[in-house]
Amino acid sequence: MAVRLPRGFRMGAVRAGIKPSGKPDLALLASGLPALWAYAATQNRAAAPSVHRGRRLYAEGRPLRAVVVNAGNANCATGERGFRDDERLAELAAFRLGLSPEEVLTASTGVIGVPLPVEKVEKALPQLELGPFADPFAEAILTTDLAVKVAEREVEGARLVGVAKGSGMIHPNMATMLAFLVTDARVPQEVLRERWKGIVDRTFNQVTVDGDTSTNDLAVVLANGAYGEVPLGPFFAALEEVARELARKIARDGEGATKLMTVRVYGAATEEEARRAARAVAASPLWKSALYGNDPNWGRILAALGNSGARFDPFRVEIRLQGIPLYRGGALPFDREKASQAMRAEEVVVEADLKEGPFQAEAWGCDLTEGYVRINALYTT
Amino acid sequence: MAVRLPRGFRMGAVRAGIKPSGKPDLALLASGLPALWAYAATQNRAAAPSVHRGRRLYAEGRPLRAVVVNAGNANCATGERGFRDDERLAELAAFRLGLSPEEVLTASTGVIGVPLPVEKVEKALPQLELGPFADPFAEAILTTDLAVKVAEREVEGARLVGVAKGSGMIHPNMATMLAFLVTDARVPQEVLRERWKGIVDRTFNQVTVDGDTSTNDLAVVLANGAYGEVPLGPFFAALEEVARELARKIARDGEGATKLMTVRVYGAATEEEARRAARAVAASPLWKSALYGNDPNWGRILAALGNSGARFDPFRVEIRLQGIPLYRGGALPFDREKASQAMRAEEVVVEADLKEGPFQAEAWGCDLTEGYVRINALYTT
Repeated sequence: MAVRLPRGFRMGAVRAGIKPSGKPDLALLASGLPALWAYAATQNRAAAPSVHRGRRLYAEGRPLRAVVVNAGNANCATGERGFRDDERLAELAAFRLGLSPEEVLTASTGVIGVPLPVEKVEKALPQLELGPFADPFAEAILTTDLAVKVAEREVEGARLVGVAKGSGMIHPNMATMLAFLVTDARVPQEVLRERWKGIVDRTFNQVTVDGDTSTNDLAVVLANGAYGEVPLGPFFAALEEVARELARKIARDGEGATKLMTVRVYGAATEEEARRAARAVAASPLWKSALYGNDPNWGRILAALGNSGARFDPFRVEIRLQGIPLYRGGALPFDREKASQAMRAEEVVVEADLKEGPFQAEAWGCDLTEGYVRINALYTT
Repeated sequence: MAVRLPRGFRMGAVRAGIKPSGKPDLALLASGLPALWAYAATQNRAAAPSVHRGRRLYAEGRPLRAVVVNAGNANCATGERGFRDDERLAELAAFRLGLSPEEVLTASTGVIGVPLPVEKVEKALPQLELGPFADPFAEAILTTDLAVKVAEREVEGARLVGVAKGSGMIHPNMATMLAFLVTDARVPQEVLRERWKGIVDRTFNQVTVDGDTSTNDLAVVLANGAYGEVPLGPFFAALEEVARELARKIARDGEGATKLMTVRVYGAATEEEARRAARAVAASPLWKSALYGNDPNWGRILAALGNSGARFDPFRVEIRLQGIPLYRGGALPFDREKASQAMRAEEVVVEADLKEGPFQAEAWGCDLTEGYVRINALYTT
C-alpha cells in the first residue's frame, strides 16, 4: 500500500522476538524536527508504566522527537521492574536516534504480567531501519488484528498520516487500542492539545468492541511543523477525519466481528448524552448479538438507549435501521424480511433521534459473534 | 418441589395463551390480609407501563393485596394502549379476587412492542386456581429460563418465600429480572422500605448477565403480618439471604451459562466502590470468556477492576481465583494447569482485596459462551 509520511517523519520496524509468531514487533517513529504533541491515554487504574511515563512527559510539555512501540508484551502489572524497563526502552530508542530519553514516548501492547525482554529490544534496535513510509510501523504494532490500519489526508499542502492498532489478544491479555498520528503542519501546541481531547472523545473514545478498557490505550498526535502553517479550521477537520477513519477501522476489526456497526444519535439534550446514547447501543451485547443474526430487533436498541442515561421520551423517540424506520414513539409496521436482508451488509447504520435538543454523536462497534467467544476463551488455554 | 407459602398468601397460575409454547403464562399472588410492601424497579427510561404504575402505587403507600404477572409479553413500547392494557390487567385480577385495582400490582415480561392480549387474560383468569404453594407461580413467570427459582427461610416461626425469573428471551426482547418475596412476618412499612433498597442493591442489583438492564425489571417484597412480629435483625438477615439465593440462581441460569461466577471484593474505600468493582469483574466480556475457557487470566480481572472506578493501588491489590493467589501487587507464580482445573466447577469464586478501606461486596455473573451468542442471534430470526 505504501503510505508516504509527512515531511520530516520516518518510521521503521524490526523483529525483536517479543511476539511468539516471530513477526515484526518493535516499531519506531522519528521526527527530524522537535514535534509539538497532544496525547490521550487510558483511564484504567492499572495503567501500564508507559502510560504513567507518557503522562509525565505530557505534563512537562517539551516537544517529542520519537515514539518507540513494542507489540507482544504490554509491560503492565510487572511491578517496579516494569517502570525501569519502560525507561530503558526509551533510553535505547534515544540512543539509537541520538536523542535524550525525555524526547521519546513509549508504548507497549500485548501480554500482561510478564517482564518486558528489554535485552531483545537492545539487540534488535541497531537493525531497525527508518524510512519514509508508514507501513512497516503500522504492521509491527499489531497483535491479533486482522488488518493494518492507516489513514491519510492532505490539508493545503500539509500531510496527515495516522496508524492504529485495535483489539487484539495475546494470552493473558486484554484488547488494546493504540493510535499515532503525525503531521508536518505547524500548529500551536495549546490549540493542538485543547482540540485533541474533543477529537479523541468523538472518535477513539466512541469505539467499543467489548466494553473493556485496556491498561495501555493511547492516542497521540505529533506535529513537527516541517511544512509550515495551514489554516486551522481545515487542519482540525482533516485531523478528525483521520482519527474517525482509524476508529472505524478498529471497530470493523473487533475480535470475531463480521460487520461494522455505526450508531448515530441525533436530538440529544447535551453532547455528552448524545455520545453516551450512541455508545450504549454500540456496546449492548443483546443488540450486538441480534446484529450478528440479522435480526431487526429494535426493542434491544430502545432498551440500550433507555440504559444510557441520556434523556428522551419513549413516546417521541425515533429509531431507524439501515434507513428503515422501525419505531416512532411506538412500533411502526415494517417488512421484517427486508429489514433483515438490509442488515446483511459490511456496515449497518443505526439512527436514533431523541428529540430533546440539538446535539448529535456517532459511535462504532461490531457484532458479537461466536468467534469473539472462541478467540477469548477457547484459543487461549 | 412444593414450597409452602407463608400464612395468608396464595399463588396460582394458568395457561392464557400468551406464550407461544402454550405453557402457563399468567400468575397471580394474593394475600388474605392487606400487605405492607417495598419495591424496586428498573431505571431504564423506556420502562414499561407496569413499572410506571407500580411506582405510582408505591408512592401512594397503600397496602397491596395481590400481584398479577404475565409472561410472554412485556407490554412495553406499546404506546398509550399499553398503559390502558396494564390498568385493565389490574382490573381483571382485582375483579377475580374481589379487590380494588389499586390493591393489585402488575408485572409483565416477554416480547416488547406487541400489544398485550388482554382478552386472553380476561378469558383465562376465571380458570386460575389459587393454592398454598409457590411452584405454579414460579413456573408461569419464566420465559426461557432453564430452571425454576425459589428460595425460602424461617425466622422464629415466620416464613419467607421468594420466587424469581432471570434472563430469558423472547423475540424481540431483552432479559428481564422479576422477583417476588412474601412473608407473614409483621414489619413496619417504613423499615421494610428503607431496608429493602439496601438489600436489593447488595443482591439483585449485583447480578449481571450481559450488562443490559431490562425495561421491566422489578423486585418486590410483601409482608402481610399474618404470623405477627419477629425480631427485625434476624428477619432482615433472612430476607437478604432469600434475595441473595435468588440472585445467585438468576446468575447461574444466565443465557448460555455453563457456570456461576461469584466475585467478592474486600478492602474498598466505600461500599459503592466495592459493589462497582465486583460488578465490573462479573460483567467483563473478556474475563467472562476466559472463565468459559477455564483460563486463569488474572490480567483481565485486574483490567476490569481498573475500569470500575474503584480506587486501588496496582502495587498492593491482591487477586485470588478459587482460593489460589494469582496476583499480589505483581504476578505471583502459580500452577496454571491446576488453576485451570479448579475453574472447571459449578461455581468459580474470584476474590480481590483492594486494600483501601473496610468495605466489601459480592456480585454474581456467569461465563460468556457461544451459547449466549446463539440464543440471542441465531435462534431469533
